[in-house]
Amino acid sequence: MEFSQMSRAQQMALLQELRNEYAKEKAKGLSLDLSRGKPSPDQLDLMNDLFDSMDSSVDCYTEDGVDCRNYGLLTGIPEAKRLFSELLDIPEENLIVAGNSSLNLMYDTVARAMLYGVCDSGRPWCREEEIKFLCPSPGYDRHFGICESLGIKMIAVDMTPTGPDMDVIEALVANDASIKGMWCIPKYSNPDGITYSDETVARLASMKTAAPDFRIFWDNAYAVHDLYPDRHDTLADIFEACTAAGNPNRPFFFASTSKITFPGAGVAVMAASSENLKQILPILAAQTIGFDKLNQLRHVRYFKKAENIHAHMMKLAEKLRPKFDLTHEILERDLIPAGIAHWTRPLGGYFISLFVLPGTAKRTWTLCREAGVVMTNVGATYPYRHDPKDSNIRIAPTYPDLENLEAAMCILTLCARIAALEKLTEEQGA
Amino acid sequence: MEFSQMSRAQQMALLQELRNEYAKEKAKGLSLDLSRGKPSPDQLDLMNDLFDSMDSSVDCYTEDGVDCRNYGLLTGIPEAKRLFSELLDIPEENLIVAGNSSLNLMYDTVARAMLYGVCDSGRPWCREEEIKFLCPSPGYDRHFGICESLGIKMIAVDMTPTGPDMDVIEALVANDASIKGMWCIPKYSNPDGITYSDETVARLASMKTAAPDFRIFWDNAYAVHDLYPDRHDTLADIFEACTAAGNPNRPFFFASTSKITFPGAGVAVMAASSENLKQILPILAAQTIGFDKLNQLRHVRYFKKAENIHAHMMKLAEKLRPKFDLTHEILERDLIPAGIAHWTRPLGGYFISLFVLPGTAKRTWTLCREAGVVMTNVGATYPYRHDPKDSNIRIAPTYPDLENLEAAMCILTLCARIAALEKLTEEQGA
Repeated sequence: MEFSQMSRAQQMALLQELRNEYAKEKAKGLSLDLSRGKPSPDQLDLMNDLFDSMDSSVDCYTEDGVDCRNYGLLTGIPEAKRLFSELLDIPEENLIVAGNSSLNLMYDTVARAMLYGVCDSGRPWCREEEIKFLCPSPGYDRHFGICESLGIKMIAVDMTPTGPDMDVIEALVANDASIKGMWCIPKYSNPDGITYSDETVARLASMKTAAPDFRIFWDNAYAVHDLYPDRHDTLADIFEACTAAGNPNRPFFFASTSKITFPGAGVAVMAASSENLKQILPILAAQTIGFDKLNQLRHVRYFKKAENIHAHMMKLAEKLRPKFDLTHEILERDLIPAGIAHWTRPLGGYFISLFVLPGTAKRTWTLCREAGVVMTNVGATYPYRHDPKDSNIRIAPTYPDLENLEAAMCILTLCARIAALEKLTEEQGA
Repeated sequence: MEFSQMSRAQQMALLQELRNEYAKEKAKGLSLDLSRGKPSPDQLDLMNDLFDSMDSSVDCYTEDGVDCRNYGLLTGIPEAKRLFSELLDIPEENLIVAGNSSLNLMYDTVARAMLYGVCDSGRPWCREEEIKFLCPSPGYDRHFGICESLGIKMIAVDMTPTGPDMDVIEALVANDASIKGMWCIPKYSNPDGITYSDETVARLASMKTAAPDFRIFWDNAYAVHDLYPDRHDTLADIFEACTAAGNPNRPFFFASTSKITFPGAGVAVMAASSENLKQILPILAAQTIGFDKLNQLRHVRYFKKAENIHAHMMKLAEKLRPKFDLTHEILERDLIPAGIAHWTRPLGGYFISLFVLPGTAKRTWTLCREAGVVMTNVGATYPYRHDPKDSNIRIAPTYPDLENLEAAMCILTLCARIAALEKLTEEQGA
């Protein structure tokens, strides 16, 4: 029976029963972590021969003879550009192949806009009274962290099953010239796993913006991160859409191999229109002589072609799928009968977005932590760490092994049920 | 006979003779590069087993068990901090071990000050009317490039044999609160190879600055880059000096392994007082999840201890010394009799700073280029690319092999003599 259909006496009895169960779990002294979207060690092990892919004494030269050990090639080695061009369907001349962190590229791109403006700006963004960014929510806490660090005001916009609420976005950007940017994880979004529909992409590309220098920060973190061999989402090409709409400079594109090879030692890329790059590259040249080309070369030597990356992603998916499946199974088993939650069922990416009974996410999180299960901070998926409904919990099922994942998920659903019953019976203080 | 002692007829005759020689050299169609401070391939070959220093499948964990393939450890792995702490004599807790580029750390540190200020600032530097940096000159073009990119006004200060002219500096910083920073390459400076004297370091540390948030950007790029086993310069400890003088937050310290291991794929570090780091680290945490820890681990596994780095530097010095010696030999042979030039004789670093007859550096550079020898752009060693005396030429003897170096140096001294005679005879138009 759904919790809301129960009598108060039934709710109280069940709460007591679940609390007894919780006490037993707590006594086990577990220490489990479902908080961060990290690949598991056995995923990473699939990549270990990355480092055997080259003999550095003879094999450190690019195809056109540049010594990757030495200085040079600011925008990356040619063969790495070709590989990412093929993988991401972006012309080589629009790509910068960089260091190990796409977050760093994103932060630097926002900071650069603050200090210099972008190619369509009249002045640096830091000279404006106020800068605002649209933040589809729930979203990625580190995007929001960049805005908060740089003093950029965030406006939360609800996510829908086809991407952020475009009616709201169109109305906002049309009338407020201080809205200069927007964060997007357009494919298998963090945390919902939603892929923007073609219509959403087209509307983002063509919408009228009061700011002439409005930018979409297109963080395609999960571009090739499908979970299933036979079903996957398809994302429209943002560059094509923006160019067709007469806004070729609108998108800044980011991706990385953090969840393809190694999160800490992969290769990140950014892409932008030629006009954007013309403004950015001289600034980048003042910032660095170049990124780690040997690591770029290692990646190219290992993968050679985009098809091999896709094949590798399917191997990773085999490791990930049982974890996502198990998570769904436990959520279904424990929360559907209770009628207190819904969640997303993405075909790729790294997260499942759980929405518990409004007003109980924080309490669920606290109960979990007290029983030794660390979840992503409740609120972290919203600007300023504030979930207005206190409902969203980001589940990151990738890091633990199946046994630990099962233990953690059982505690999570138990805590969600306890928190819901406390709310319904107004017995939270107990 | 020195050129200035010659009669005009003697000068004209010699000029004609040298021009004939030049025509012959030019006809050879050489293509030689003395422009950048790059290690030569045979130096880099000494490091190739860096990549055999670990078997990544089992050997990717820090001493306290962190998987270097995965996310985390924003400020670097503990064993890398210990290694650099030992090498640079800086407490581990004041060190950040980062990515492959100390220039990137420097740019980011200046950009961060522009966007947020430093820990002693009342507001972000970009909110000030004007920001100025002191630039000991000749100096490093990429330092000046950072200022120019960020719109920071540069004030050139002459270098002396004991470091920058401290009388001038003390007078400037005492009276102008818009002077917020100063570039220093305190050991084996680029390009002069001068090491700041203990008195210079003490005066820099203790001088009164009108700006409460004045910062010294201490780019110790050649900290352990001695050329001779028996003679080397010693640099006073800037942190010790600043702390003793009551200005512990004044220095930002930078170094890297770019000229120890690989210029393109080494490890860079920065260091600062705890109060500086307290302000910087939350911003760094917004900028990146972490630097490439596997590359840090490779470096630690390879070197293990500071003493092994010193031993490695002596091996590199054996490769470099003949090049510096040959350069000095040719300069002495060709330019001392002419009496038209002087140059530095550093005990370490990567450069020799040549001062040709004032008013002839550009002409010398052009003659070199037309004969196929590329030198660092004349003026690049001064702010805004302007050498007021048109005299300084930075010689970077490290990259070419001895044969090419000899050929290039002979052309350089030939061109310097031709340019001097043209100047003395006012025949430059010929």
